[in-house]
Amino acid sequence: MTDVGLLSPGAHRGAERTDDTAVLQALLDVEAAWVAAQARAGLAPDAAASSARAAARAEDYDAADVARRAEGGGNPVIPLLADYRRRLGEVDPDAVRWVHRGLTSQDVMDTAVMLVVRRAAEPLARDLGRTRDALARLADAHRGTVQAARTLTQHALPTTFGLKAASWLAGLQDLEEDLAELDRLPVSYGGAVGSLAASLALFPDAPDAAERALDLARLWAEELGLALPPHVWHTTRRPVLRAGDTLAAVCSALGRIANDVLLLSRPELGELREPAAEGRGVSSAMPQKQNPVLSVLLKRTALTAPQLAAQLHLAASLYVDERPDGAWHTEWSALRELARLTVAASSHAAELAQGLAVDPARMRANLDASGPAVLAERISAALAPLVPAADGASGKQRVQAVVREHATDRPGMVAALVRLAAGAARPEGAPVDEAFVAGLLDPAGYLGANDLLIDRVLERARRSANDRSTTPGAPAGTTARSTA
Amino acid sequence: MTDVGLLSPGAHRGAERTDDTAVLQALLDVEAAWVAAQARAGLAPDAAASSARAAARAEDYDAADVARRAEGGGNPVIPLLADYRRRLGEVDPDAVRWVHRGLTSQDVMDTAVMLVVRRAAEPLARDLGRTRDALARLADAHRGTVQAARTLTQHALPTTFGLKAASWLAGLQDLEEDLAELDRLPVSYGGAVGSLAASLALFPDAPDAAERALDLARLWAEELGLALPPHVWHTTRRPVLRAGDTLAAVCSALGRIANDVLLLSRPELGELREPAAEGRGVSSAMPQKQNPVLSVLLKRTALTAPQLAAQLHLAASLYVDERPDGAWHTEWSALRELARLTVAASSHAAELAQGLAVDPARMRANLDASGPAVLAERISAALAPLVPAADGASGKQRVQAVVREHATDRPGMVAALVRLAAGAARPEGAPVDEAFVAGLLDPAGYLGANDLLIDRVLERARRSANDRSTTPGAPAGTTARSTA
Amino acid sequence: MTDVGLLSPGAHRGAERTDDTAVLQALLDVEAAWVAAQARAGLAPDAAASSARAAARAEDYDAADVARRAEGGGNPVIPLLADYRRRLGEVDPDAVRWVHRGLTSQDVMDTAVMLVVRRAAEPLARDLGRTRDALARLADAHRGTVQAARTLTQHALPTTFGLKAASWLAGLQDLEEDLAELDRLPVSYGGAVGSLAASLALFPDAPDAAERALDLARLWAEELGLALPPHVWHTTRRPVLRAGDTLAAVCSALGRIANDVLLLSRPELGELREPAAEGRGVSSAMPQKQNPVLSVLLKRTALTAPQLAAQLHLAASLYVDERPDGAWHTEWSALRELARLTVAASSHAAELAQGLAVDPARMRANLDASGPAVLAERISAALAPLVPAADGASGKQRVQAVVREHATDRPGMVAALVRLAAGAARPEGAPVDEAFVAGLLDPAGYLGANDLLIDRVLERARRSANDRSTTPGAPAGTTARSTA
Amino acid sequence: MTDVGLLSPGAHRGAERTDDTAVLQALLDVEAAWVAAQARAGLAPDAAASSARAAARAEDYDAADVARRAEGGGNPVIPLLADYRRRLGEVDPDAVRWVHRGLTSQDVMDTAVMLVVRRAAEPLARDLGRTRDALARLADAHRGTVQAARTLTQHALPTTFGLKAASWLAGLQDLEEDLAELDRLPVSYGGAVGSLAASLALFPDAPDAAERALDLARLWAEELGLALPPHVWHTTRRPVLRAGDTLAAVCSALGRIANDVLLLSRPELGELREPAAEGRGVSSAMPQKQNPVLSVLLKRTALTAPQLAAQLHLAASLYVDERPDGAWHTEWSALRELARLTVAASSHAAELAQGLAVDPARMRANLDASGPAVLAERISAALAPLVPAADGASGKQRVQAVVREHATDRPGMVAALVRLAAGAARPEGAPVDEAFVAGLLDPAGYLGANDLLIDRVLERARRSANDRSTTPGAPAGTTARSTA
Repeated sequence: MTDVGLLSPGAHRGAERTDDTAVLQALLDVEAAWVAAQARAGLAPDAAASSARAAARAEDYDAADVARRAEGGGNPVIPLLADYRRRLGEVDPDAVRWVHRGLTSQDVMDTAVMLVVRRAAEPLARDLGRTRDALARLADAHRGTVQAARTLTQHALPTTFGLKAASWLAGLQDLEEDLAELDRLPVSYGGAVGSLAASLALFPDAPDAAERALDLARLWAEELGLALPPHVWHTTRRPVLRAGDTLAAVCSALGRIANDVLLLSRPELGELREPAAEGRGVSSAMPQKQNPVLSVLLKRTALTAPQLAAQLHLAASLYVDERPDGAWHTEWSALRELARLTVAASSHAAELAQGLAVDPARMRANLDASGPAVLAERISAALAPLVPAADGASGKQRVQAVVREHATDRPGMVAALVRLAAGAARPEGAPVDEAFVAGLLDPAGYLGANDLLIDRVLERARRSANDRSTTPGAPAGTTARSTA
Repeated sequence: MTDVGLLSPGAHRGAERTDDTAVLQALLDVEAAWVAAQARAGLAPDAAASSARAAARAEDYDAADVARRAEGGGNPVIPLLADYRRRLGEVDPDAVRWVHRGLTSQDVMDTAVMLVVRRAAEPLARDLGRTRDALARLADAHRGTVQAARTLTQHALPTTFGLKAASWLAGLQDLEEDLAELDRLPVSYGGAVGSLAASLALFPDAPDAAERALDLARLWAEELGLALPPHVWHTTRRPVLRAGDTLAAVCSALGRIANDVLLLSRPELGELREPAAEGRGVSSAMPQKQNPVLSVLLKRTALTAPQLAAQLHLAASLYVDERPDGAWHTEWSALRELARLTVAASSHAAELAQGLAVDPARMRANLDASGPAVLAERISAALAPLVPAADGASGKQRVQAVVREHATDRPGMVAALVRLAAGAARPEGAPVDEAFVAGLLDPAGYLGANDLLIDRVLERARRSANDRSTTPGAPAGTTARSTA
Repeated sequence: MTDVGLLSPGAHRGAERTDDTAVLQALLDVEAAWVAAQARAGLAPDAAASSARAAARAEDYDAADVARRAEGGGNPVIPLLADYRRRLGEVDPDAVRWVHRGLTSQDVMDTAVMLVVRRAAEPLARDLGRTRDALARLADAHRGTVQAARTLTQHALPTTFGLKAASWLAGLQDLEEDLAELDRLPVSYGGAVGSLAASLALFPDAPDAAERALDLARLWAEELGLALPPHVWHTTRRPVLRAGDTLAAVCSALGRIANDVLLLSRPELGELREPAAEGRGVSSAMPQKQNPVLSVLLKRTALTAPQLAAQLHLAASLYVDERPDGAWHTEWSALRELARLTVAASSHAAELAQGLAVDPARMRANLDASGPAVLAERISAALAPLVPAADGASGKQRVQAVVREHATDRPGMVAALVRLAAGAARPEGAPVDEAFVAGLLDPAGYLGANDLLIDRVLERARRSANDRSTTPGAPAGTTARSTA
Repeated sequence: MTDVGLLSPGAHRGAERTDDTAVLQALLDVEAAWVAAQARAGLAPDAAASSARAAARAEDYDAADVARRAEGGGNPVIPLLADYRRRLGEVDPDAVRWVHRGLTSQDVMDTAVMLVVRRAAEPLARDLGRTRDALARLADAHRGTVQAARTLTQHALPTTFGLKAASWLAGLQDLEEDLAELDRLPVSYGGAVGSLAASLALFPDAPDAAERALDLARLWAEELGLALPPHVWHTTRRPVLRAGDTLAAVCSALGRIANDVLLLSRPELGELREPAAEGRGVSSAMPQKQNPVLSVLLKRTALTAPQLAAQLHLAASLYVDERPDGAWHTEWSALRELARLTVAASSHAAELAQGLAVDPARMRANLDASGPAVLAERISAALAPLVPAADGASGKQRVQAVVREHATDRPGMVAALVRLAAGAARPEGAPVDEAFVAGLLDPAGYLGANDLLIDRVLERARRSANDRSTTPGAPAGTTARSTA
């Protein structure tokens, strides 16, 4: 079985840290780190740790063969372990005895999956940072770029593209805290049935064997750049659920941006345009087309993530015993696929945000095409209290009737409204004259808290950027794939 | 990106016809068949068809490179087509001009996906046939093997293992008609926007160009072993939905069997045991364990399929325009994964059903442990009408009280019930004596329509087997992978 | 607990046959029909059947109280049965003994759920028929209404709105056969554990008790307008799955229409407009807005259905024993909700299709705004073979360059293309002159098999309409809610 | 349309704060609180606030009528607002003008949904607290109750029921922080398009109108017991996603407990038994049965929650514009249903945990039935290093062969192992005699870190209980349903 991504265009951007080679490397790193932890705890010689690491290079193993043999035990740990022991035994026979001592397959599998997600979180964080930076620039630059705000597909009021970009950005900011949890993913440590029985046997006759077993796990977690969890989570899956939910939420937040781009880059709207790239978005038969492929792929991912997250929730609902009979097995590829797609999506989004072309003129033209009626809310609020009821219609109803009648006819609407409010005075005493009414019909004058809202998002972005520059991420494991 | 199945143990059984190599082959076959169809229609020379076929061998292409370049257009057809044209051009430059003429990427992609499913349906049908045959044997052999029927986890009444196996079989029989649709999957044929415009241009000045374009498509479908659909289905996805729903239903039907096996092979029940195989189900640390791995993997698959089918329904809900902006792209891997997992599951199920070990003694012992109370329904129905009310309790209530009191004490219950019905006579006049009551407490005497129900399922199995032997499946495409 | 639909706007259109009152009625009808079946089989007096029916009126029961007490046994049959027996006992004490004899809760629950779906299928069929008729009229009337075909959001080629409407219609035609299955939904009949043990006890000493038990079930099914299934389906759920999948597919097919309407009624496109209705789509604050609410609700439903169908597949995957410990319980509200939403959606769709306003002028204007480049596929196919390579560019590349350069400039493109093909002759010998090139640039001349494709869909619609008029649907149960 | 919970047994336990009456009350409270906030800000008279509150009693409104009219605008706010204004106008005509000023339907709808969840979180927290307390008692009381630990359905090693209960508890502890977020749910505040335009118009000519508009929102949030969010979340849905994911995770954690209870209360295992209650779990036809209904309903809920959470993720993925055209509308009932089911589940779980009957003797008997082989891991680890290789078998293989041969024969295994290790000495020099080997075969001696692991969970429980007792929850809104 060989899948290279033919049916997941663009997913290769997230593959390096999530494909089966990366998974294999994570499994090997987890086993090697266990020997290293024993060495640090004085249980094994340092030489064993060195040998264990040297033997843990994914490229030395036949992943496809391991995959096939994984059927026998229902997971790849058992056959990989056999190969690892054999390989290690060839170079350092003595080291073999420290391998996997006290661990169970689930410890290794769960920890490796966490390690894969942890490693995927690094490019993810980087590309989301690039995306946020680009969105912040757009929000700031376009705070005065008036655009139609649309609700339920129809023009509702004016807004600015800056505020829209700020909203996209805010959607990502909301997830920063959740994403930070991905840097603190735990090792899984419980032994065959969650009691650490075999680990304790590593410390025979030690009265504090349990504490020492936990200390050993802490060293292991350090080796891997993971955290020591508060308890055995073999059958309680919050780490998996939270990772999955966060990744899915990122996909949704990015998909929400793509949805706007897909709409606003339609030829009839023409307000945005994806960055062009050699060979992207072209149609051989239709050379005039420029398809918004980045956004299409982002939307594809956003539509895929919810089912993958649901798969994890479903698995968690079906745990039973000290290890379940199928639910656990559904988690691995769901979480891996989520990680892969999310990393790819963050790369797509960064490229999209950094190169997005904005057409303020089209934005204004589209808004103007709606005519002054798009300001109906404002006109009604300002004039209804000043217009007397007449012929059984309230002031508000009379104003709204004028708005509907002259919906796209600015001068006509101004004249009719001035007539309607003839003789009325504004609260501060000034008359309702043509200048006042014409002012009501200026979209740029009805943008609400546009600047404050944008500023608040930008301020949050600055704080976050500062945090990032001062807190360098801890390395995810001593044996990252590239250096293994 | 390279995935070899590390996180999907057992899926390799379904990989040969569904992995990216198989997808690549299907894409190439679809393109080559189009040239062949043109040759049969007299539009292209026969030599072009031969060359087109010869150039369509997946092993001659760099699938990973195609996958990477698929990002540019959002699907793999465009880059693959470039490679195919180049390769074909090297051996038969003249043939290149017939390639892809009048087709659009979606035609090729949709048709290739259907072809993949069609080809996967062959091992699927074969292994489901093996499974049904084995279940039929179990149903017949164990029609007298009394077992506890359990509802909501508790013993309810006696049944037979034969009836349970018949029920498993019936679940698969229900899907035979649905599965037959997989042999009639359609090509997708609409051109760039579903109007066949470019295809008609192949018949310039022909007054019946539209009919001839459809004739051409029919030849294409014949080449591929697929059907000609009643209309363009670029944006109406019943073929995809039905394929997905059927595959998912198969996974559920097999999962339902696995659930019973997983339960009944627990040591406390011990009624069934999976077939052993070298290296399967063993635990290195716990040599006494024999894990029911086939069933675990079947359950894994059954828990995965619903989300994949939901992905297809969701995609269908989001079609818009003449080709949608992301929904289409979510279908490919979902349907492929469903096909792969279902093929693997049918293989697992066949092995499981053929080798399942049944322990009639444990079945009987477990039932007997429930005592005669498990026949409460029967006792109550038979005796309540004969027992007079007393002390404010109805006859039924008095009988039930006895049943509860002597739930696991057969002699005690017989004696108490005979006392309760003292003097009563059965409808036909015979007395309610110890022999009669003891008979009521014999599980083998309360199996309902056990034999008739089993016979009906077996009769249906025989009819289906006859149909299979007389209707050889049409070959799925002239260029099956193995012969390409 | 009282839900009246506050969070499901529009769902009330599907409520009459699916809400808890309808479910309660179905449960009562199922019990009453069982007494009636016994009467027809000569097992019970006719008077019992009459009394049983008379006592089975939902309005005489306290549904909320039954719902609360349903917790005790995990389903509403047990408490409802107690109430039903009491009520019946008040008017016809003798009749009580025939109630529920031989049935189990699951028989009643499953059958009632099928009956609810069967009854919901009637308004569904009617409103889908109205929708198809309206779409057929649109397809025919607009076969010459030229419109931009859009793929991946961008203009691709010309098409007609007639062909789009035909495609919408075809999506519904595809499901007619599936929907017909909803008229043949089965009763569920198995007794406590699927062996019919208690039913056989109704025929003591009869050698053919099993056959007679099945005959009794056939009478019961007739009473209810349901079918007799080939076998007990307590634990094999194809009837539930197929009903759910079909309903979900209808929601997707209708949602696909709504997606187009939502897009094409945006102000920037303005090609379609939903029918107006008093109070619909209005915004109090923004009187100029006319929201496409029917389509919004259709899309809402289409986005909801996939998860509900997935719930049913998941349930089917988790059956175990002779009745499962939770999976069964998840089916009821999922299938009911699907039925309710689908019925409502068919009503929304009929109203939408019947009143949809089409603006051919805007369609043409939007297409024209793309300029002649939208015909690039045609231009390239016609001229590339006639244009010689030059300066390292192939004929095709030279043609495409001109198309890109003059993308929206019709006269400029005509002139440039004529220049490019100067001296070339068409296959039939005529020169490539301005008239020929200008003709290539006429969208109405590049509609492919538009008329044939529309005609085929309309022909299928006619056949289907004939079938409907000659096959009156069987009544779904003798005790429909309105007459109960 | 009237649903009373007939198809959701047990859901009534969560209905009081989540059904449509509660939703209606929340909508009214949100509107009334807005008038109150204006009064606190000095924009409206206090009398208006009083009148607004007095008019906001759900029982004074026709919820079904509002629901029907909700179709027109696609949400219930518009018709309810009309009724509210009319009702308020009857008692305090002047107050009407302050109603809904500056708000949009989405502000009200989103905020009301948050308020419903916030209110549901109170009984949820209380019942989860009861559940945790009960589990803590079980964990402590049964730390010495030896039980078989099972993995992949088979006996693996000994464990204790105390450790299992601690694991259940830990699964809930993991979610406490997530649940705390439900106490800080935000109001939704953005006005028609997220710019607060209409709110700013409440402060004409004020240079700090934007700040004052936010201050007003803060007062509103205070009135409702909700938080002021960092930004407008009309189109960025983290609050909805996190609420949904947390509720779903609770359902999974409770379902995981139920799964164990369902298994362990099967008659063949008999280790646990649900608390009995009048009328619960009984079968009229089978009086001997005692169905574990609480666990069945918990499992039902755990199987339902994942799809509901997925619905929310899907909605978030489909936001577009300043308010989307269908995605938003799918959230309401999904989140409400999640809240209702989770509250009900917490009540079921508390009752289950508080009344769970534990049978230590059966636990021990089931473990013993596996024989000493269940200690294979320990035996192998202790003896393999001491047994010499022979006949081509390693020491480990020789030990394992003995374990398999005498799997259930304790004396035989002891004798054989002593023979195998004849002459060997343990690391500390003592001989491998019968006493030593018999000790290895004592399950109670191989429980790993059992006590430490339990203690850590209990310590965490104590800290959490302390936190709860010192931090009284803030009231969720001034107008809770009971007092309205």
